[in-house]
Amino acid sequence: MKKIASFVLAACAVAFAVPAAAQFAKPEDAVKYRKNALFVMQQNFGRIAAMAAGKASFDAKVAADSAAIAEFVGKLPWAAFGEGTDKGDTRAKPEIWKEPAKFKEYADKMQAEMSKLAAAAKTGSLDSIKTAVSATGGTCKTCHDAYRKE
Amino acid sequence: MKKIASFVLAACAVAFAVPAAAQFAKPEDAVKYRKNALFVMQQNFGRIAAMAAGKASFDAKVAADSAAIAEFVGKLPWAAFGEGTDKGDTRAKPEIWKEPAKFKEYADKMQAEMSKLAAAAKTGSLDSIKTAVSATGGTCKTCHDAYRKE
Repeated sequence: MKKIASFVLAACAVAFAVPAAAQFAKPEDAVKYRKNALFVMQQNFGRIAAMAAGKASFDAKVAADSAAIAEFVGKLPWAAFGEGTDKGDTRAKPEIWKEPAKFKEYADKMQAEMSKLAAAAKTGSLDSIKTAVSATGGTCKTCHDAYRKE
Repeated sequence: MKKIASFVLAACAVAFAVPAAAQFAKPEDAVKYRKNALFVMQQNFGRIAAMAAGKASFDAKVAADSAAIAEFVGKLPWAAFGEGTDKGDTRAKPEIWKEPAKFKEYADKMQAEMSKLAAAAKTGSLDSIKTAVSATGGTCKTCHDAYRKE
């Protein structure tokens, strides 16, 4: 039984590419960690999305800084979706732990698009930013539709 | 009146060295943002502190990764202490907005010590990490004692 548990743990570690840093004292800490990281990411992404939508005036420096933060912080939540963190104050659907490969694919896709957005924001081209915001936002929606409760 | 408001805003921007990115749709977003960033920082710092205290086994890779995250995320909360964010779900004391220079000094000191910790963690020396954890933890306590409600 212990061996099976170890194997499952190892398999999950590979499936999620969980860095060794994915150690939390309590499952609640992991849930809070991923929600908090996602909120920080969303706030930075949202700032750029507002510029892309013409709802905020375009500021290239703000866009570049915000995109760099969103890119960095967008890498953090995924280590906090370990086993036993499907409970508590979370809207995460149980499917996340049933389809880890698909969930990881979605998470990876978001990070890839966010990196493209950070690169676009560095160039200062609003048109490039608009394209990247749209692509990144699409990856948020795809994952939320599949794996986040209403 | 508008001119005074602009001046105050400009003065605050300087006092807090607020990056232009410090734009939040609502004060509640700013409060949540800084709390969430501080939690993510604390979780990463706490992981290293546990190793330094011998409460967790030392893993140089985890320590280095966690310190790098704590260093990056530790730069984020300060932009979210703007005017009008002294209310709501926060333990921030009003003194923060009365003594912005001192508050900034404490925040800067923490970030400087956290950078030293990140550098120490990169070397892989547990002794260096212990020294840096202690110094960094001291800056957390100094600021919390002065500016955070019980």
